[in-house]
Amino acid sequence: MMLKKEEPHVVIVGGGFAGLAAARGLRNARVRVTLIDKSNHHLFQPLLYQVATAALAAPDISAPIRKLLSNQKNATVWMSPVTRIDVERRRLQLDGRDVEYDYLILATGMTHAYFGHENWVAHAPGLKTLGEALDVRRRILRAFESAELEASPERQRAWTTFIVIGGGPTGVELAGALAEIAGRTLARDFRRFDPRTTRVILVEAGPRILAAFPETLSEHARLELESLGIEVRTSAPVSDLGADFVEIGSERIAARTIVWAAGVRASPLTTHLGVPVDRCGRVWVEPDLSVPDRPEVFVVGDLIAKTQNGKPLPGVAQLAMQSGKHAASAVIASIQGKPRRPFVYVDKGSMATIGRNKAVAKLGRFEFSGIVAWWLWLTVHVLFLVEFRRRVAVLFEWAWAYFTWQRRSRVILEVPQELSPKKVGYESRRWLRTGS
Amino acid sequence: MMLKKEEPHVVIVGGGFAGLAAARGLRNARVRVTLIDKSNHHLFQPLLYQVATAALAAPDISAPIRKLLSNQKNATVWMSPVTRIDVERRRLQLDGRDVEYDYLILATGMTHAYFGHENWVAHAPGLKTLGEALDVRRRILRAFESAELEASPERQRAWTTFIVIGGGPTGVELAGALAEIAGRTLARDFRRFDPRTTRVILVEAGPRILAAFPETLSEHARLELESLGIEVRTSAPVSDLGADFVEIGSERIAARTIVWAAGVRASPLTTHLGVPVDRCGRVWVEPDLSVPDRPEVFVVGDLIAKTQNGKPLPGVAQLAMQSGKHAASAVIASIQGKPRRPFVYVDKGSMATIGRNKAVAKLGRFEFSGIVAWWLWLTVHVLFLVEFRRRVAVLFEWAWAYFTWQRRSRVILEVPQELSPKKVGYESRRWLRTGS
Repeated sequence: MMLKKEEPHVVIVGGGFAGLAAARGLRNARVRVTLIDKSNHHLFQPLLYQVATAALAAPDISAPIRKLLSNQKNATVWMSPVTRIDVERRRLQLDGRDVEYDYLILATGMTHAYFGHENWVAHAPGLKTLGEALDVRRRILRAFESAELEASPERQRAWTTFIVIGGGPTGVELAGALAEIAGRTLARDFRRFDPRTTRVILVEAGPRILAAFPETLSEHARLELESLGIEVRTSAPVSDLGADFVEIGSERIAARTIVWAAGVRASPLTTHLGVPVDRCGRVWVEPDLSVPDRPEVFVVGDLIAKTQNGKPLPGVAQLAMQSGKHAASAVIASIQGKPRRPFVYVDKGSMATIGRNKAVAKLGRFEFSGIVAWWLWLTVHVLFLVEFRRRVAVLFEWAWAYFTWQRRSRVILEVPQELSPKKVGYESRRWLRTGS
Repeated sequence: MMLKKEEPHVVIVGGGFAGLAAARGLRNARVRVTLIDKSNHHLFQPLLYQVATAALAAPDISAPIRKLLSNQKNATVWMSPVTRIDVERRRLQLDGRDVEYDYLILATGMTHAYFGHENWVAHAPGLKTLGEALDVRRRILRAFESAELEASPERQRAWTTFIVIGGGPTGVELAGALAEIAGRTLARDFRRFDPRTTRVILVEAGPRILAAFPETLSEHARLELESLGIEVRTSAPVSDLGADFVEIGSERIAARTIVWAAGVRASPLTTHLGVPVDRCGRVWVEPDLSVPDRPEVFVVGDLIAKTQNGKPLPGVAQLAMQSGKHAASAVIASIQGKPRRPFVYVDKGSMATIGRNKAVAKLGRFEFSGIVAWWLWLTVHVLFLVEFRRRVAVLFEWAWAYFTWQRRSRVILEVPQELSPKKVGYESRRWLRTGS
């Protein structure tokens, strides 16, 4: 499958915020665009924790990449892992086939990092994909089910102790949602224990939660979390964990449900570029977001290692969208023989929600907390959902949940695993968790 | 955990239509009710095919059993498989614990039957649980993704050939939805093939589809399916199938997506009762739905083998609800020392949908087809969804889909499998697909 026509071929790997913005930025360009992703859907990651905590269904926050680009005539979408990048020959290896590019935009985002403790993965899943969110949801709901069946008070306690590791926005949002589930949603549903006695512990290795926010907002968030009954432990690095415990220093806490929101590293494809990366695998890009000595290769989104005004660029949706769009402009400039402009990140602010009517937000010089920040958070998140249809559905779910305290998606899903490739013998069976 | 208090203990196994109706029928009785199900949710099975065909999300048609019974003070819900029934000692074996009953209501429903071809399971999944529906959805969506990547026209053809085996309501509804997906939903989303060339084949071993309906309606349904471009093959028993083919007699059809809607058999727990069962494992019950010589054990829902006016009782939601309610009344009668009444099934009619504005329905002596039947189908299905909230959500999804031809849930979900019990070593890890 060696495509070679007159129009330059731009290959984008990854259909998240950055990859999608890059594809859309090329919609009027005289190029052929191929967007490759290992899954079939674009995911609105900022709301992933709501799928994990049973507030939203998986389809509420995802849309087929193919559908989002179906009207863009110059764009083709392939669902496939990418197994290798050959920057010398300008070629990608997919599962069983190769594809050549004139320009490459790498937008594969981040995956979890367990800092060398790979055995923790099984006990403390992270939250990056819909599958992981459904796994976390299953663990949370089943913990309460198991507590109801458990005769020993001690083991019941372990089932009703939830530990969230990592005090960034995801960790804070998860802990807040867990407290709400235990304190309100499930309050009357069990006979042999009271879900309101549930223990939720948020563990952060650094000195404060929400480290990317101003200190006043961090402190505000901590107080709000504590008002929900959550134990916030800062300066508390995890030394060990297993199926039923977490160790913080020398303290061992019995807990059967542990969620990892602590560390990320770049998806492994960045190592194929043959250029310097930082300790998380992010690429030290040129001012125009291209890779050193490879002006035809761009790195966008969370994969960017770059400082601006002395501070590293944050791994947030805004950066992803802005950098994806910038890479598209740079490709167009090159094709038109014009000079490329350097990328400048415009920080429009950041926000994190804690629970009903509780959030923190920083917009420019302004800081907000409480109900104002919560409404801001809600508005911004609904507006940025990619399709109008999803906005209506999510607003409906949220309004319903607000007034009833119920969560729509309290369903434990067990999707049968696929056949092993050996048994079936077709390459298509290998989509699962390989590559890009 | 040997519960023995003054009030009789009624154990219900299964939280489907029958089990739930039984539990609710006991809400004012002086009994302790324990409802045991291996999953945490009640499922509105008649709409399962809509989850499989990406029209609805899993939570739209399911609700936590625990939530549905949270206001019923005499009811406890346990999520657990049941591994054994000891009718002599009136005792159930759960996963790692026993429970005694005074009355037992068995409502575990049906599972798939492959008529001795157990190797077909992997290639032609059935449609009984949410997990299976998500598996079928994944296969359908991925078949189109694979067709887009496929260079060989012959293999592309196999990816765009869908075979539904079994011409009952589920098979008819699935085939109709597949034709709509191919012909409308995906029509403009691919670049290397036209989804409108998709082949959908409905295969039925018997002489006509919808055999439980009057012949005129069967014929009407066949014509409607054919107008959607579906090939309907009757008197066509499948002789073999594999990962990429189905054999009907001596004809071999290359197809990569096969769905099984053909055979069912009773869940294996009926064999523990030590009483005669029919060839599908259903129990020949007494007139009051109790088991021969075991007046304290009832069998309800799809598990009933019984004829009425010379015809076998059908495995439908109405029978499940009516029989569950009847078993509850029989328990109450026994406790009050009154005679039990025989069960009489009241057939309120049956219906099946084929596609937009196309359905067939039989209500009493009246037969309907086309748009009238479709509106009937729609109204009845929305009214019977268990929660008002779900009714609103499903109506919204359907209205949206009707006007846009889009389907909300075009998302391929890969939920990480759980750890093996060996690795974790806790009984809770064994919920998965065992028992009840």
